[in-house]
Amino acid sequence: MSTEELVLSQSQELRRGTVVLACLALLEEAQYGYALLETLNDAGVSVDGNTLYPLLRRLEKQGLLTSEWNTDESRPRKFYRTSPEGSRVRVGLEREWQDLVASMARLTKENRGIR
Amino acid sequence: MSTEELVLSQSQELRRGTVVLACLALLEEAQYGYALLETLNDAGVSVDGNTLYPLLRRLEKQGLLTSEWNTDESRPRKFYRTSPEGSRVRVGLEREWQDLVASMARLTKENRGIR
Repeated sequence: MSTEELVLSQSQELRRGTVVLACLALLEEAQYGYALLETLNDAGVSVDGNTLYPLLRRLEKQGLLTSEWNTDESRPRKFYRTSPEGSRVRVGLEREWQDLVASMARLTKENRGIR
Repeated sequence: MSTEELVLSQSQELRRGTVVLACLALLEEAQYGYALLETLNDAGVSVDGNTLYPLLRRLEKQGLLTSEWNTDESRPRKFYRTSPEGSRVRVGLEREWQDLVASMARLTKENRGIR
């Protein structure tokens, strides 16, 4: 693998873990899958539908999201929203995320001098 | 699963992706596996030996680390160090990581008002 390919594959690994947190945060405001997908990608959390849609169904099964069909428009759409339990998990995950960001900042700064 | 279990399992997912970056950063200075394990855990990037040791061998096979036996002490130890290619991948990954941290900050801040 080239340097670029190694960075890319490893970077996908980095991003994978953040998708759940991003979904729980964004879905405090109800959205349907495709709109959420666009919001995530616009924000730089790249994910595709084959990953996101099964993830949303899993999070609903775990009780972290609720869903509701909106039939106001010609094409019915399933809207997802973060449940109260999802909000609690989200708060815990945000704390974990902040800890991790701080840890990584320490680790990568410590070694800056000898790069 | 309880809220705590959900946060824990998801938080491991968040952390998993950062271990490679942390290793490449720390091993700019040669270290043997167990010392690296302690440094990572002290810094809050939790990982156990069953994950770390195979990872180090994989990174060596990919050419991102080099290794050398140190036999100065009674117990020979394999020291790992980041290779020049590993340093290039590390620089790319640090940039990806910073982008991801910035994306997540935007996403979670945007929704702060309606939590």
